[in-house]
Amino acid sequence: MVRLIALYATPDDPAAFDEHYRSMHAPIVARYPGIREVRVTRLAGLGGRAPSHYLMAEMAFDSLAELDAALASDPGRESGRDLRNFAQAGVTLFVADDRAALDV
Amino acid sequence: MVRLIALYATPDDPAAFDEHYRSMHAPIVARYPGIREVRVTRLAGLGGRAPSHYLMAEMAFDSLAELDAALASDPGRESGRDLRNFAQAGVTLFVADDRAALDV
Repeated sequence: MVRLIALYATPDDPAAFDEHYRSMHAPIVARYPGIREVRVTRLAGLGGRAPSHYLMAEMAFDSLAELDAALASDPGRESGRDLRNFAQAGVTLFVADDRAALDV
Repeated sequence: MVRLIALYATPDDPAAFDEHYRSMHAPIVARYPGIREVRVTRLAGLGGRAPSHYLMAEMAFDSLAELDAALASDPGRESGRDLRNFAQAGVTLFVADDRAALDV
C-alpha cells in the first residue's frame, strides 16, 4: 500500500474546519479513483502539549501510479482547489510508500 | 489503537541515519512495554518534489495510557536520549488516537 498523507495545521475555527472537511472535502476524496482506505485522525501532543498539527488524513492506494492518477483525476484536482476553502492555516502533503519501509 | 508518530527531518547523511536507526534506535523502541506494532517508512514528496520529512515511524499501542507508560519507561527515556545521536536535523512527535477519528 501507498499512503498519501495530509497533515493539517491547526485552524482558527476547528468546528468549522471539521464541518467543511466532513461535508465537503471527504466526499470529494471518496471519489478518487483507486482509493482503498481513508483514515482521518485528530492529533494530540505529547505530555499535554499542543500538537504540531491538528488533523492527519491518510489515503491509501495500491500503488504510487494509482495515487498519482487519483491526484490527476477530476476529484483530485477538485480536492486541491477545495483546500483554499478550509485549510487556510496550511497543509503538508507527503507520500508514505510501504515498500520503502526500513527493515527494523 | 493509539499511534505515537515521529516525523524525522531530512538528515545530512541519510545512510548514517538509517544505520543508526536500524542498529541502535529500533532495538530500543522494540523494548517499549506494551508496544504492538512498529512501522518505519521513508517518505516521498508529491510530483517529484522533495518531501517535507525524511522518515515516519509509527508506534502503536492499545491505549493512550500504554503509550504514556512506554515513554516513561526505561526504554522510553533511553530512546529520547538516543535522538541526539542521530536526529540532529529534528524530529516532530505527535499522537494519533484512532478513537479521535473524524467520522467521514
